[in-house]
Amino acid sequence: MEPEDLMIQSVLSNWRLTITRLSALFGGLSQAEFYEEIAPGRNRIVYILGHLTAVHDQTLEVLGFGTRSHPKLEEAFIKNPDQSLETIPSIADLMALWEQANQRLYDGMESLTPRQWVGRHRAVSDEDFAKNPSRSCLTVVLNRTNHAGYHLGQLMLWHAHKG
Amino acid sequence: MEPEDLMIQSVLSNWRLTITRLSALFGGLSQAEFYEEIAPGRNRIVYILGHLTAVHDQTLEVLGFGTRSHPKLEEAFIKNPDQSLETIPSIADLMALWEQANQRLYDGMESLTPRQWVGRHRAVSDEDFAKNPSRSCLTVVLNRTNHAGYHLGQLMLWHAHKG
Repeated sequence: MEPEDLMIQSVLSNWRLTITRLSALFGGLSQAEFYEEIAPGRNRIVYILGHLTAVHDQTLEVLGFGTRSHPKLEEAFIKNPDQSLETIPSIADLMALWEQANQRLYDGMESLTPRQWVGRHRAVSDEDFAKNPSRSCLTVVLNRTNHAGYHLGQLMLWHAHKG
Repeated sequence: MEPEDLMIQSVLSNWRLTITRLSALFGGLSQAEFYEEIAPGRNRIVYILGHLTAVHDQTLEVLGFGTRSHPKLEEAFIKNPDQSLETIPSIADLMALWEQANQRLYDGMESLTPRQWVGRHRAVSDEDFAKNPSRSCLTVVLNRTNHAGYHLGQLMLWHAHKG
């Protein structure tokens, strides 16, 4: 196997590991726990679930995997802070959207060729990509893996602190 | 440039970004803040600085970049929990070791060829690597990037919460 293929496998397994840890954590929480704040006065767990789902849904378009499934999530979980909207989706709905966005993302990632991995992502123009070739699909995936791991760290701290 | 070279650039820039954010955060703290707990009853900030430094120092050997500089850090910041040893290095010393370990790591990473990136890391035998070729230097670096980002997420939560 060529180095580039082995590299892609590493990136995918690293992504999967982080998502699996997050899903396991979310999957083990009670309804009530989702409405707790991660720290006094900070976001609730449900907001973090919604935020990660919204970011991953949006990332489908950034990576060129088609249209995002739930553009309304952006309003509730990216553009606005927690507790600013009157209603948000239920935990059950959010968990289903979380799984769905991750499945679509993963299927898309698996379909990319090495050249596509290092090709431009859709939120950057050809012209800007020519100036800065680091704005690739791979950079987006590494960035999103870190973003997910960053919130996982916060969730684990909250979780450990509870008991 | 070949895909494999562009991939390595992405991985390096992702690593650098996380380390830079951590260094900026640590660099902006007062002495007293380093001795605060990240959450009630949890590790102090100084322990997290020591822990990340110890892990990065140890990673030098895992990646084959020579002997770690400060094997004693492992005792204080990996093998034992916070507040279990009578004395730990000063903040000034830890900050110097943190910078030093990261510099050595980064220099080493920059020297790796694509084949070396996907080659086995030193904590796995040839035999085990043959069975599981994902145990590469690249996997270690992605893993350490996530580990650093995970703690960064916790530090940012603590920092935001302070005010």
